[in-house]
Amino acid sequence: MANTYAVILAAGQGTRMKSKLYKVLHPVCGMPMVEHVTGNIEKLGVEKIVTVVGHGAEKVQQQLGEKSEYALQAEQLGTAHAVQQTASLIEGLAGTTLVVCGDTPLIRPETMQALLDQHAETGAKATILTALADNPTGYGRILRNNAGIVEKIVEQKDASPTEQQVKEINTGTYCFDNEALFEALKLVSNDNVQGEYYLPDVVEILQKQGEIVAAYATDSFDETLGVNDRVALSQAESTMRKRIAEKHMRAGVSIIDPATAYISAKAEIGADTIIHPNVTIDGDTKIGEDCIISSNSHIVNSVIGDRTAIRSSEIHNSSIGTDTAVGPFAHIRPETVLGNDVKIGNFVEVKKSEVGNDTKVSHLSYIGDAHVGSGVNIGCGTITVNYDGKNKFQTIIEDDTFIGCNSNLIAPVTVGKGSYVAAGSTISKDVPENSLAIARARQENKEGYASKLNGKK
Amino acid sequence: MANTYAVILAAGQGTRMKSKLYKVLHPVCGMPMVEHVTGNIEKLGVEKIVTVVGHGAEKVQQQLGEKSEYALQAEQLGTAHAVQQTASLIEGLAGTTLVVCGDTPLIRPETMQALLDQHAETGAKATILTALADNPTGYGRILRNNAGIVEKIVEQKDASPTEQQVKEINTGTYCFDNEALFEALKLVSNDNVQGEYYLPDVVEILQKQGEIVAAYATDSFDETLGVNDRVALSQAESTMRKRIAEKHMRAGVSIIDPATAYISAKAEIGADTIIHPNVTIDGDTKIGEDCIISSNSHIVNSVIGDRTAIRSSEIHNSSIGTDTAVGPFAHIRPETVLGNDVKIGNFVEVKKSEVGNDTKVSHLSYIGDAHVGSGVNIGCGTITVNYDGKNKFQTIIEDDTFIGCNSNLIAPVTVGKGSYVAAGSTISKDVPENSLAIARARQENKEGYASKLNGKK
Amino acid sequence: MANTYAVILAAGQGTRMKSKLYKVLHPVCGMPMVEHVTGNIEKLGVEKIVTVVGHGAEKVQQQLGEKSEYALQAEQLGTAHAVQQTASLIEGLAGTTLVVCGDTPLIRPETMQALLDQHAETGAKATILTALADNPTGYGRILRNNAGIVEKIVEQKDASPTEQQVKEINTGTYCFDNEALFEALKLVSNDNVQGEYYLPDVVEILQKQGEIVAAYATDSFDETLGVNDRVALSQAESTMRKRIAEKHMRAGVSIIDPATAYISAKAEIGADTIIHPNVTIDGDTKIGEDCIISSNSHIVNSVIGDRTAIRSSEIHNSSIGTDTAVGPFAHIRPETVLGNDVKIGNFVEVKKSEVGNDTKVSHLSYIGDAHVGSGVNIGCGTITVNYDGKNKFQTIIEDDTFIGCNSNLIAPVTVGKGSYVAAGSTISKDVPENSLAIARARQENKEGYASKLNGKK
Repeated sequence: MANTYAVILAAGQGTRMKSKLYKVLHPVCGMPMVEHVTGNIEKLGVEKIVTVVGHGAEKVQQQLGEKSEYALQAEQLGTAHAVQQTASLIEGLAGTTLVVCGDTPLIRPETMQALLDQHAETGAKATILTALADNPTGYGRILRNNAGIVEKIVEQKDASPTEQQVKEINTGTYCFDNEALFEALKLVSNDNVQGEYYLPDVVEILQKQGEIVAAYATDSFDETLGVNDRVALSQAESTMRKRIAEKHMRAGVSIIDPATAYISAKAEIGADTIIHPNVTIDGDTKIGEDCIISSNSHIVNSVIGDRTAIRSSEIHNSSIGTDTAVGPFAHIRPETVLGNDVKIGNFVEVKKSEVGNDTKVSHLSYIGDAHVGSGVNIGCGTITVNYDGKNKFQTIIEDDTFIGCNSNLIAPVTVGKGSYVAAGSTISKDVPENSLAIARARQENKEGYASKLNGKK
Repeated sequence: MANTYAVILAAGQGTRMKSKLYKVLHPVCGMPMVEHVTGNIEKLGVEKIVTVVGHGAEKVQQQLGEKSEYALQAEQLGTAHAVQQTASLIEGLAGTTLVVCGDTPLIRPETMQALLDQHAETGAKATILTALADNPTGYGRILRNNAGIVEKIVEQKDASPTEQQVKEINTGTYCFDNEALFEALKLVSNDNVQGEYYLPDVVEILQKQGEIVAAYATDSFDETLGVNDRVALSQAESTMRKRIAEKHMRAGVSIIDPATAYISAKAEIGADTIIHPNVTIDGDTKIGEDCIISSNSHIVNSVIGDRTAIRSSEIHNSSIGTDTAVGPFAHIRPETVLGNDVKIGNFVEVKKSEVGNDTKVSHLSYIGDAHVGSGVNIGCGTITVNYDGKNKFQTIIEDDTFIGCNSNLIAPVTVGKGSYVAAGSTISKDVPENSLAIARARQENKEGYASKLNGKK
Repeated sequence: MANTYAVILAAGQGTRMKSKLYKVLHPVCGMPMVEHVTGNIEKLGVEKIVTVVGHGAEKVQQQLGEKSEYALQAEQLGTAHAVQQTASLIEGLAGTTLVVCGDTPLIRPETMQALLDQHAETGAKATILTALADNPTGYGRILRNNAGIVEKIVEQKDASPTEQQVKEINTGTYCFDNEALFEALKLVSNDNVQGEYYLPDVVEILQKQGEIVAAYATDSFDETLGVNDRVALSQAESTMRKRIAEKHMRAGVSIIDPATAYISAKAEIGADTIIHPNVTIDGDTKIGEDCIISSNSHIVNSVIGDRTAIRSSEIHNSSIGTDTAVGPFAHIRPETVLGNDVKIGNFVEVKKSEVGNDTKVSHLSYIGDAHVGSGVNIGCGTITVNYDGKNKFQTIIEDDTFIGCNSNLIAPVTVGKGSYVAAGSTISKDVPENSLAIARARQENKEGYASKLNGKK
């Protein structure tokens, strides 16, 4: 949108968060709330986004990077003062400026667009985003005249009993004629108890100048939530969570219990995949079609192929093929690549390894720093001994091998194609192709001995 | 109920589900929604159930089997057309016909019975099941005259602003005088934008014939939900879930968080059993009294005896005795039978095995294709080596044996009654009764060697 | 508060609980509901708490111990009769008596205090705690005159249609002038259908005597819930759960999903700790600052140091240091003490052991009855063989040792400082300091043998 600018107010400290982390950096569904705001505004295609930073300025800039320009509000002297700090970047430009708080991650681009559209249509110098609150206590109330024109914003503490009945509230999001905004900002005073410069005063100033102030009322109060403490943070999380789940359900994903589907805003999920309760999908995860993600699974920054089943498992920064089964109780650690038709069973950890197609690691094994071929059967209790206390080494298990149960493969070591390692062997030397490797003691049965054993149960 | 018939409309495609699976086959609490409908109608004891099938006809018939007769609606030409397809099965019969949509799994038998009862009492030719909607937008509204008699069903698009205020809506469930129904069906036309034959038109036709049309208003709007997309599917799941949980709680089961108790409609649970949060109980599972089912457990088609504790474990198609403890983090796979006073501890997998009374498998073990006697102690890390890469073999561990830690039992093999296997042994030959079997290398201590070791940490 | 007494009514059977456990002993968020009531009253600092016990009297007394005095109501003849049983302990004392039901665990001390305060201010002889119910059906209604004075409590069955419209209900909690109370109790009759003596009759008696009866209306109906069945029990649990979560969030704890944060009322959690969904924190657990408690973790009666991460693990009656990582899928059993900078990885069980600083037990191990020093690396699959079928023995692993994978340490045994155990060894003798211990068979490769193997896959 040509001649449209956005100012994000992100300088406040957020003391009610009681946190070492700066307020607008607290995550909602895995992403800092100010990044939600920036992302939503980016979708509008505005010409310029200016974020007003103050407390934690450096970390906020680091988080948002080049998505925004920045204005520093060194001292927190109120919202009007905050907007004033952007003067060197946008004052004097013809057009419209959207002002949004950095702690309102739920306001959708569609809502901001509707606000801007109405602003353009009415020709008002300022348009307030308002909402109807069931319980408006604490919010600034919007007083309109009979023609529906906004007459005043009354703060809670100044509201008469009649005005307190008004349910239309100021959400703190506005758009302004940019030139009128900066003219008016100069007239805002800090003649109030807190000694701060308040942005709503701009509205009054414009009205005194005979300008029309409009309001666009969204029908979704929830969306306008400002996050000031962790209770509100959890509410924002809940609303966002439902929104994300609903998006996937409408696209053909079955989610058994949307209330406990913790899915990142960035995740992609194919149609006819079923998400069972209490599943967490974090980061840039991409899940294929017809998958079954069972309860208690946690998938982070990973790719899962079609028709794959993940049961009660953790998968981090890895890639899983199609028609593969993982879990229950498996742990796939970063930099793992599993092929197609693979089975990773219970109590198996795979770390930084490649596992070829049609390979099975069914139980109680640790595969770390390994290259495992296709068609391999890794017996129960197999361990790749990748660490000697000082360095990590690689294990190579070639195609079509069979590793017997409870084997140790002491890296660096290679088990050649088609070979067979006997159960209970500790393998410290390479095994040639098509060989049988065995390293175990002979069994001795001491008959009648158990009866004599002192320690016998 | 003599002279009562039911028609289930289950032929629509359900495009908004965006699924390869046919709409009425989507499960709610583990059971296809059309099977909920059939099951609810069966409880009324009607003479005949006819399901109108179309899209996915074969799969629906396969799912319902002999619970229903079937009429094929080859082309989807509207709900009146769908009912018309049942003519060869029920036209001309004296009595009452209940018409229910296959996507309304929540309508309880009690509600249908109340509808039928009122129909019988009033002598109406048609009675509509209605409900009061907080937000009726999108539904057909029920217009009644001052005497409460139904005058008209107005669809959303045809409703005047005043009519849109009406909160009583048509749920799409009806009962009709069967003979009047089929007479009226002949008069329904498809003279509308979609070119379809609509069942509500039957109501108008009957009214024009001077017949009385009644309405039975249920006070439970939630119950009448029709599932058209996966958002509605998840709502149906949620309502059904609460209903199932409430049934168990009223019968004496403690459910810590009913919102996260995922219990199949078929499950039975004894009194004073405690279900912790996020437990899934699927299929035909039967749990005894005084059990504790801890968080994150998942039990499928299994029987659990009294006073047994299941912690964070998966149990599939198995039978668990009384006073037994499973988990945390255990996996009981199909065809397992655990006795009484058994302990299966953490990171233990049991597959297709019998485990006798008073036996312990406390940690990190795999028991597969085994017969384990009573009074046995299976040491940590024990593995039944049941697979040689080609075939599976059985392990027999007789009563009162003690299997040392990290042992391999290479099947087929028998450890005789009262025997003792030394820790770290790989057992490939049978162990006679009361024997000590040992298969391990002698320990050597190389003093001072560690200091010299290059690899020393 | 001088001259203030509290009577807790805890004698009823609670048949609708359908339980072998006596009603007021059913837990809410891990604590019997009557203990919540006692605890809340204790915060008021009253002079005397008298609990009226009947069914399960002994167990209730055992649970509450010296927090209360007791009066026995051998036969359950109504609430007035129950209060009458406390006569020998408080009759004749000047002052105020608070009467609270033992099944109302949610009434906060603040609310009781407000009730007592208003009682004192108005000089009424009785003050009823009332609440506004959206759906008052089933409750006694409070009828007030134009001046707001209570005229009558009308039970549901006696209420006229107009009276049924009244939404102010009797919560069953009262305070009385103590002397007036016991005088009035003598006048209560059991001339009613149930033949019981009802406490609300005292109100009427006082009014007939010309005394003023007041009512304090709390604005929190939820808080006054009386638990009569397990559905209500789960509601109480849900309300209490939200209350506990909110307390922590306001104090600076991030709780991703308060609806699935199952936190005991006694738990303490430091600021900037993050609680992920579906976490259970039981008993007297104390968690430090900046911790991450990931989904599905269950922590019982344990202490967790600052900056420690717990992932999908169970921790019972143990102490965990700072900067330590546990899980996923670990099980820390009672009497374990983990140091700082420790790593306990996946599929590891630690039982009754001490583990020193900077020690790692990364995978698939069992550490039981062990003393593990600092700077130790326990390889994957290591097992402390602490049980010989008859007794348990201790394993000592001294500082800076390295235990190779899949080792068995047969207790009692000591691995000396700085030593190294080779992978796959079964260690049955002590290992001196700085030694290498090895106990394994030599590897043999039978070339070409695998191709011949019948059992080859």
